[in-house]
Amino acid sequence: MNSTLPLFFQPKGVAVVGASTSPEKLGYGVARNLIQSGYRGAIHFVSQNAGELFGHPIHTNLNQVPDPVDLAILIIPPNATAEVVEACGQRGIKAAIIVSSGFREAGKEGAALERQCLEAARRHGIRLIGPNCIGVIDTHLPLDTTFIQPPMPAAGNIGFVSHSGAFCAAIIDWARSEGFGFSRIVSLGNQADVNETDALPEVASDEHTKVIVLYLESVADGRRFIETARAVTRRKPVIALKVGRFEAGQKAAASHTGALAGSEAAFEAAFEKAGILRAETSEQMFDWAEALADCPLPRWSRYAREERSLLDQRGIAILTNAGGPGVIAADSLETNGLRLAQLTESTLKELSAILPPAASLHNPVDMLASASPETYAVCLKVLLADFNVDGALVILPPPPMFTAESVAEALIPVIHASDKPVIVALMGSALTERAAEKFQRANIVTYPFPERAASAFGALVRRAEFLAAETQCREELKISRPAVPAVNLEELLAVYGIPTTPIKLARSVDEAATIANDLGFPVVLKIASPHIPHKSDVGGVLLDVPDIESLRRGCTQIMERVKAARPEARIEGVYVQRQISQGQEVIVGMTRDPQFGALMMFGSGGVEVEGLRDVAFALAPLNRTEAESMMRKTWAGKKLKGFRNIPPADEAAAADVLIKLSRLAIENDSIEEIEINPLRVLEKGAVAVDVRVKFG
Amino acid sequence: MNSTLPLFFQPKGVAVVGASTSPEKLGYGVARNLIQSGYRGAIHFVSQNAGELFGHPIHTNLNQVPDPVDLAILIIPPNATAEVVEACGQRGIKAAIIVSSGFREAGKEGAALERQCLEAARRHGIRLIGPNCIGVIDTHLPLDTTFIQPPMPAAGNIGFVSHSGAFCAAIIDWARSEGFGFSRIVSLGNQADVNETDALPEVASDEHTKVIVLYLESVADGRRFIETARAVTRRKPVIALKVGRFEAGQKAAASHTGALAGSEAAFEAAFEKAGILRAETSEQMFDWAEALADCPLPRWSRYAREERSLLDQRGIAILTNAGGPGVIAADSLETNGLRLAQLTESTLKELSAILPPAASLHNPVDMLASASPETYAVCLKVLLADFNVDGALVILPPPPMFTAESVAEALIPVIHASDKPVIVALMGSALTERAAEKFQRANIVTYPFPERAASAFGALVRRAEFLAAETQCREELKISRPAVPAVNLEELLAVYGIPTTPIKLARSVDEAATIANDLGFPVVLKIASPHIPHKSDVGGVLLDVPDIESLRRGCTQIMERVKAARPEARIEGVYVQRQISQGQEVIVGMTRDPQFGALMMFGSGGVEVEGLRDVAFALAPLNRTEAESMMRKTWAGKKLKGFRNIPPADEAAAADVLIKLSRLAIENDSIEEIEINPLRVLEKGAVAVDVRVKFG
Repeated sequence: MNSTLPLFFQPKGVAVVGASTSPEKLGYGVARNLIQSGYRGAIHFVSQNAGELFGHPIHTNLNQVPDPVDLAILIIPPNATAEVVEACGQRGIKAAIIVSSGFREAGKEGAALERQCLEAARRHGIRLIGPNCIGVIDTHLPLDTTFIQPPMPAAGNIGFVSHSGAFCAAIIDWARSEGFGFSRIVSLGNQADVNETDALPEVASDEHTKVIVLYLESVADGRRFIETARAVTRRKPVIALKVGRFEAGQKAAASHTGALAGSEAAFEAAFEKAGILRAETSEQMFDWAEALADCPLPRWSRYAREERSLLDQRGIAILTNAGGPGVIAADSLETNGLRLAQLTESTLKELSAILPPAASLHNPVDMLASASPETYAVCLKVLLADFNVDGALVILPPPPMFTAESVAEALIPVIHASDKPVIVALMGSALTERAAEKFQRANIVTYPFPERAASAFGALVRRAEFLAAETQCREELKISRPAVPAVNLEELLAVYGIPTTPIKLARSVDEAATIANDLGFPVVLKIASPHIPHKSDVGGVLLDVPDIESLRRGCTQIMERVKAARPEARIEGVYVQRQISQGQEVIVGMTRDPQFGALMMFGSGGVEVEGLRDVAFALAPLNRTEAESMMRKTWAGKKLKGFRNIPPADEAAAADVLIKLSRLAIENDSIEEIEINPLRVLEKGAVAVDVRVKFG
Repeated sequence: MNSTLPLFFQPKGVAVVGASTSPEKLGYGVARNLIQSGYRGAIHFVSQNAGELFGHPIHTNLNQVPDPVDLAILIIPPNATAEVVEACGQRGIKAAIIVSSGFREAGKEGAALERQCLEAARRHGIRLIGPNCIGVIDTHLPLDTTFIQPPMPAAGNIGFVSHSGAFCAAIIDWARSEGFGFSRIVSLGNQADVNETDALPEVASDEHTKVIVLYLESVADGRRFIETARAVTRRKPVIALKVGRFEAGQKAAASHTGALAGSEAAFEAAFEKAGILRAETSEQMFDWAEALADCPLPRWSRYAREERSLLDQRGIAILTNAGGPGVIAADSLETNGLRLAQLTESTLKELSAILPPAASLHNPVDMLASASPETYAVCLKVLLADFNVDGALVILPPPPMFTAESVAEALIPVIHASDKPVIVALMGSALTERAAEKFQRANIVTYPFPERAASAFGALVRRAEFLAAETQCREELKISRPAVPAVNLEELLAVYGIPTTPIKLARSVDEAATIANDLGFPVVLKIASPHIPHKSDVGGVLLDVPDIESLRRGCTQIMERVKAARPEARIEGVYVQRQISQGQEVIVGMTRDPQFGALMMFGSGGVEVEGLRDVAFALAPLNRTEAESMMRKTWAGKKLKGFRNIPPADEAAAADVLIKLSRLAIENDSIEEIEINPLRVLEKGAVAVDVRVKFG
């Protein structure tokens, strides 16, 4: 599919079109970086004025450029660009990066120029990156097509795909001071052709890349993105920073599901489905990337079958020479959903033989300020040998009696000898600088604060859990059935095996009485009007109607109330339904996200859905694991197990309805929103009491 | 009260007892730092061996030390320390810092030694800091009593009180690289005498201190802490990092309030009452401190009386040369509860005259990558002149065509000329280093990421809001009435003006029938047993009993159910109560926190309180502002205004009950927990339907 994409990273020759001899021009910067990067293929410069640049001749025409050349970098005025793309095609160049801005981002005219570039590219089978981007970097090849100020980023194992070029430039500079490097970087700009979904597998396929970070402002094709990303995350971790949360205005929605599901909920669900870790901040994204690139994962899956009681004792060990930072670390680990390891008796015994009597042996292990480099090393070794310890967080503020560097030297071989993750909170700056360099050269991850170290541990554990879940047999919901031509909603639900309580339309009070007698009392009366989505808001619902007499009174009553509240609404009559009061009430719904398609919701039902916000989202189709995990995220889902005087209800039946509704959503494109509120989950089974549907 | 505390910061002479000539000893480090700090008072060294150190004689006895000497620093073995404290007293020294460890933190023997030190100190009116601490630093005096590795922290305007010495040492080192300094630092250690509440006002009273940060592991006397801190926060901002969240095991609680209110909820409430900003991480605490120390506050209060529509347009302006970081900043400001300013027409016109056509004029203002230093400066000036702009977040990644330094030079005078806060996200490292230095020298706050800048803006705004609320007349609840000797719960509530629905104990079915006839149907039946706190859990509650016949059946029914569920419980009969079904159900409760006393709770009632967790906490006594703000934090509180088909209920009456219950809690020490669940908030008024009380 992306067969020409590798050309961006493995060109045999590169032509810079718009190369300049004036240092203040971007065309100079690109030429300079390409030369300085140490790129070993052929380098060609093209400009209107012949001459020489960095010892290479400047051609005045692409046709003059000798072989090999398979990648062109264009830094020329927007209105001349399409022409040069055309020339690239004629010259047999199949990959082009348009660096210049002034295209779609600049308005209508620019958009037209961008379209012309794309058309020229399509005619010749050229893949385009940009326009309005800084291009690509491969530190291992090496190759640097950008104009950003040198030096180029340090070689490393983090791949980076970004919708923002300036963010790349800033991060490249910042990364140097943080001591990490990159493998491949792609800045996508306007994405006339190549987008984040195209670039992701290309960066992931690189052998030097161990983890990929994504800076995303949007996603071009939601479903393809999920599929592509999922194929990547099975092999390598992907972390995303998604911005633009608050931009998208909420569209008017006809259901609770529609009102609650913003594009944020859909992105959350998409990342979960794709196995992408979502970071909250830029700093966090790169903190996690460093750990995922360089640390072994905690052995999460190996003991998945262990007894629960054994699992409960397992966790992270904290090794510190001071109480305060140890407490900060312990708090932060718990905040990130991790546990402290319960050290075994033999570990405690070994520690007590090493440490002074005033030391604290129990996790966090506080060796006291006097701890020597050797003490650090021996204690860490003991901790990592403990079965209950899945990883260690070592805290190293400037030691009062030793240099931090000497502690680093003692720790490094111990960390290297273990297959468990060890992260160091190296707290300080000048006094810890040389230690930082030592750790960095040894590929050991450090952070200046325990909180950031704990957050990185959280990412390692979530990654390990994801892979563990992946190895379990994943029952994927098979979608094969064509759309069902159902006559009405009740039938449609019946086809998908979702039980409903019979509901019938009465066009007169007498008809209502007859229906109620058939169904049996007590019944519920609901106004029937296509113009009233929230019936109870206008007094259009009457519960617990016990007998014929009350029914007659009730019909008149709700008619009057609704007419008063909504005089313009066309009223077709009154729905009569058998009342079901047992069981627990939940809401199950679906709305279509413009990016990611059918988005399922589960949670606490009733009218207060939007107030309580006890809801969870996931993208259809759902398998049982996904449905259950979704339910567990809400109080409504947890409560199904029973709580206090609320008896347990049929969890499996609720999950079933959720799964079936997700299938219905996938197979019936014409349904824009559907919502069961409430679904009554009984002791055995579950019944849809009120269903609302909106066709697209 | 703390009349001798100033001696720690303004001693005329300091004696180091345990000074050492061996560089590997702490007693050497303390002597070295004291000398190197540039302390201008008299410096005396005392040790067992006479000699000379840094050109000063070493005395072998405190008595030999000439005047002036009013502060002693003790670095001697624990078992010799009490004796030296005694000698200090005899020498007329009124302030001592015990640096050595091996006291309470080391076990029983150490605790005894610590007690001896304290007793000696008390005998002579000596104030003690420590033991097991690093002492105090005043960068302006200057004075450094610590042994931590030099150099001492840069002089600055942040005061720092810490329960952990190692945390101080690490932060001092880190702060240098971040470009901020300290005014006063106090490390408290074991707090045999001086604790955080003593130290806080002492640090705050320093003229160089503009903001105080607290690293807290606990609080010695909750109520005194709140009072003291509140007096400080009226004048200077205080930020706290509270750790040890997960340590305190939850005590068994008899009510929902007790079960939900951990020590964390109490600390949260205490910080709110004291006006302390609570930081989530170490990095955040110092990020906020930098902004609060150096930025003017947004003019929040000045326009408090403005029309709402005008207020809605006001907010923060983002100025950037790149789209991506601008979007990150916009997201982060919203995450921190801030709004983007809506720029006025005249601002947009001015900007359009300055910027190229492709630039984005609307906030975030994107000047494009070509933005020159002058463009940055002129645009910022225009933005700061806009009435709707309360502050500006300037984003500066390495500019492709200019140096970041030249942009800094252009921006600094504009920022200095404005009385609105400006924070710079200076994104990078090597390429932005010189710009960072320039900003730092100009006291302009920078962060490497927009997220951290936005978080700091959030702190500025919360501080401004706090001060604005302070200037409003605060109606403090006067507590003067002595405890009321109430015969029973109903009377107690009546004394405080909390309406209850009559509830009567029936010892037989006939008696129940008579009572019900008196009260009027429908009624509620509840089992009466001192052994059953959660009645509905055992089927001990029957709602909606419509008539005598149902009542007779119901009495038998609940007796049987309760006897089956709790055969051991003594049953006294059945309570009969008039059923009130109107209005909305909320929970109002109080539990006593061991640190901070009466802790009030408000939220969604019913049995699912602990599942839904829709609750908020605040410390008693509550005034109306506090009660209302608490209610607004919950869905239950918001819903009182009405929602969909749920009619509005009497918010003021609910607040009233909350306030009255807080008074009841303060005035009746013997009540350990009290909970009204539900309180029915009616169209007019509110009624306590079920009240549970636990005496201490």
